[in-house]
Amino acid sequence: MKKTLICAAALTMIAGLAQAQSNVTIYGLIDANLTYNNNADVAKNSQSKLNSGGMNTSRLGFRGTEDLGGGLKAIMQLEGGLLLDTGASDGDLFGRQANVGLQGNFGKLVAGRSYSTTYDFVLPFDPMGYSGQYSWVTSAGATGGRKDGMLTAVSNMLKYQYDGEGYKLGATYGFGEVAGDTSSGAKLALAASVNFGAVAAVLAYDQNNSVAIAGGAMDEAKSIHLAGSYQINDAKLFAGYRNYKKTLATGATDLRSDLVWAGLNYQLTPAWILTGIYYYQDIKNMATGADADPGMLVARARYALSKRTDIYLAAAYAKGTNGKLVGVSRDDVAFGTSQNSATVGIQHRF
Amino acid sequence: MKKTLICAAALTMIAGLAQAQSNVTIYGLIDANLTYNNNADVAKNSQSKLNSGGMNTSRLGFRGTEDLGGGLKAIMQLEGGLLLDTGASDGDLFGRQANVGLQGNFGKLVAGRSYSTTYDFVLPFDPMGYSGQYSWVTSAGATGGRKDGMLTAVSNMLKYQYDGEGYKLGATYGFGEVAGDTSSGAKLALAASVNFGAVAAVLAYDQNNSVAIAGGAMDEAKSIHLAGSYQINDAKLFAGYRNYKKTLATGATDLRSDLVWAGLNYQLTPAWILTGIYYYQDIKNMATGADADPGMLVARARYALSKRTDIYLAAAYAKGTNGKLVGVSRDDVAFGTSQNSATVGIQHRF
Amino acid sequence: MKKTLICAAALTMIAGLAQAQSNVTIYGLIDANLTYNNNADVAKNSQSKLNSGGMNTSRLGFRGTEDLGGGLKAIMQLEGGLLLDTGASDGDLFGRQANVGLQGNFGKLVAGRSYSTTYDFVLPFDPMGYSGQYSWVTSAGATGGRKDGMLTAVSNMLKYQYDGEGYKLGATYGFGEVAGDTSSGAKLALAASVNFGAVAAVLAYDQNNSVAIAGGAMDEAKSIHLAGSYQINDAKLFAGYRNYKKTLATGATDLRSDLVWAGLNYQLTPAWILTGIYYYQDIKNMATGADADPGMLVARARYALSKRTDIYLAAAYAKGTNGKLVGVSRDDVAFGTSQNSATVGIQHRF
Repeated sequence: MKKTLICAAALTMIAGLAQAQSNVTIYGLIDANLTYNNNADVAKNSQSKLNSGGMNTSRLGFRGTEDLGGGLKAIMQLEGGLLLDTGASDGDLFGRQANVGLQGNFGKLVAGRSYSTTYDFVLPFDPMGYSGQYSWVTSAGATGGRKDGMLTAVSNMLKYQYDGEGYKLGATYGFGEVAGDTSSGAKLALAASVNFGAVAAVLAYDQNNSVAIAGGAMDEAKSIHLAGSYQINDAKLFAGYRNYKKTLATGATDLRSDLVWAGLNYQLTPAWILTGIYYYQDIKNMATGADADPGMLVARARYALSKRTDIYLAAAYAKGTNGKLVGVSRDDVAFGTSQNSATVGIQHRF
Repeated sequence: MKKTLICAAALTMIAGLAQAQSNVTIYGLIDANLTYNNNADVAKNSQSKLNSGGMNTSRLGFRGTEDLGGGLKAIMQLEGGLLLDTGASDGDLFGRQANVGLQGNFGKLVAGRSYSTTYDFVLPFDPMGYSGQYSWVTSAGATGGRKDGMLTAVSNMLKYQYDGEGYKLGATYGFGEVAGDTSSGAKLALAASVNFGAVAAVLAYDQNNSVAIAGGAMDEAKSIHLAGSYQINDAKLFAGYRNYKKTLATGATDLRSDLVWAGLNYQLTPAWILTGIYYYQDIKNMATGADADPGMLVARARYALSKRTDIYLAAAYAKGTNGKLVGVSRDDVAFGTSQNSATVGIQHRF
Repeated sequence: MKKTLICAAALTMIAGLAQAQSNVTIYGLIDANLTYNNNADVAKNSQSKLNSGGMNTSRLGFRGTEDLGGGLKAIMQLEGGLLLDTGASDGDLFGRQANVGLQGNFGKLVAGRSYSTTYDFVLPFDPMGYSGQYSWVTSAGATGGRKDGMLTAVSNMLKYQYDGEGYKLGATYGFGEVAGDTSSGAKLALAASVNFGAVAAVLAYDQNNSVAIAGGAMDEAKSIHLAGSYQINDAKLFAGYRNYKKTLATGATDLRSDLVWAGLNYQLTPAWILTGIYYYQDIKNMATGADADPGMLVARARYALSKRTDIYLAAAYAKGTNGKLVGVSRDDVAFGTSQNSATVGIQHRF
């Protein structure tokens, strides 16, 4: 009798704890590495540095879910990027995710700020899983000041996603919030993907309007992504394509480029994953002169210390044509017609 | 015997968990909506946007309490506002609450930054429960550059509150921290409220001094609030009044205004709450010309999906007199002599 | 039988809870006080203010550890400073700690941003435990624009520490990240400490290079710390010494100074700890004129309301020589040839 009471008390306490603490989960990812780059300044000196985010960008987040009954859930997410090398926030406090919404049989609808549907749907087809070190899927490396790329994160946003059996559909709309002109500053992304076991594919379209200048004209960047993957034994092959076109408010010649990538992940052992990939961007019309048309070759070896902690070693080689400057990262200035980079790091999820 | 031991072990573990995790609680509120406004620019175009904080401003906080024995508790709170539409921090990181103190039979005393006693005591008498969409209790809508309002949040602060049987007393003092002049930049708020079951009332006084200019003169804003509520069956009626006066360091004519509000919350069903309210500000002396004397009529329907999640639909109509410009929000510029606004949103607490 | 099942279920649930929640721990410290300073402006007026961080700087952090097996652990830490008086972040979001690494039999190695090895090793020999109110161990009080002090926090950093039986070794290296010049902007700290029960001592060296100017010259600050402590009954005596030298990129005369401190903690009762200390800085060569050579005498009484919450009362008196201006804090401007300061506050850990 007594024991039963004690046990009942225990269960009540556990239930209380579980309820009190299930409201919000803290999660994140911390990734730091040592990186070597050649051609790192005008004198083409090399540089060693401690970087944040080699396999994935560092972040801290808070996630909540509430069962509303009848298969309906309220969901919320706050997530901000971190620069681990300085401890500074990488952009706004919760500039990665800041949204609330509902999830049910109808799918998932959130409002606030988040990554675009293009980002959500296309990134799984990048064997590097998007990483500044080293991937060109969101946008290509530094070249001539152009960063032709997808619509990544969106403010003032509604995002919808439906996960069916073997397929997913998604849409993002970002309000431009300009009175009297709903297209000024507006963002749109649409995507569909299919997953037939070993074979998966995605098709995505997005449009990124700048705020209109006097007269109502605006820059309009449009990108189309088509990508696929194929699992064969311990290897997963990936290939993707982006068509990018930006019409300019000034009426100057459109900016156009194609990006293609092809690569693979290979599960060498339960702990080791090897990745190899080649990115190539065909720039159709530089504002002036010949095109850089840069390419980047990347190799990475990743060793899982646990489900949550990995160490990794990666190297990249980027090269342009026609004597144009090119670098491995879109975020750094390029000083050479090619660049070598190598990194060794650790990533920890929590 | 064995069972008892297992249960004892379980209880010990639970106690351990409870202790380890009771130090700090994460909490917050995420609120996003779609809002339509007319008269949103000089050309009087309308605007659609995704807003943060329709029923309550979005926030994330950390709260801790420690039992010190003898009825005494240490308490701490860190809370920051969020702009859900962009993911940015709304003001300083923990600009809403950043304080520590003691709570016991003597009441509660905290030091740091927090909302003023006026804010704490008067807000429960606003049926909108303060919301930028749409309430004028903290300060009235955009009109002629003036934002006559209460002392809201206070830095460099000591705050005291005593909760008696059926009554509460409170005081806030914010140090100006100006050497040699303790009144320069200082803030003060005093309030008392009573609660006799169906009837409740509050009286509050606050003073907000600017930093003194050369010669020691300073702007001094003073507000007096008087408000009450009356519960009758499923309806709760509210009425309130603010007397505002600001003397200016320049010696120019004082700024004075009265704000009155009257409205109700009606519990239509356990899940539905309807709110209706009218705010009216009588501006006594605009710096130049006739007064705007704006009013705003608000209606809101709120449906509780759970104790923590609500969806809501609200509409507001603001109008001034004498051809003066007026808007529904103190935070936006007004472009018309009236403004309509409507919003549909979701709020989630965690 | 039933009871056993219930208990088993309880244990399973507890295990699940423990696992789910052990990934990251929220911790922090909130410290606020009322402080009085004389000589607080040009007219030598006194000032009262509400300060953040009287015994320790206010902070909020997230700490994680993961058992990788074989004595190896992954560790991560994110910690940011807070200004409790305003709710603002004190420096970058996680400017105190932002690092990830591994811990095992080999010691502990982390990458990112953290405090220097000098800070980690020398601070335990300051009876004030470093506090802006009032300690000069990290750098001396305001005097003539010079803040001769240790290398405190380091970005772009690798830090190693080994804890042996009765001794600890540590090293910090901060990458300058300047292409072609690894010494430009680089930081280094090395330290060793021993602990023989009642007696402990530390020796630390650090070097702090500025970013090189054209021609490659840079400011190079070097400090050597030597400190010890001795426990005798309820008293713990402390003494320390810093030799500081900064060579300047401009080739101007080196800046040199010695700092010495001596003091004690006295455990009066289990709840009361009394602290007394004297800091003295011998400035060897001011850029112009005679030296300030300031000293500061500090007394503090601390009462533990619990293991996590303390109240404290402290007073400091700083004085320079040769008519030079000196203040108790390196972070405030000095207006007098001496300064008195007193504070009463509360500190809460969570």
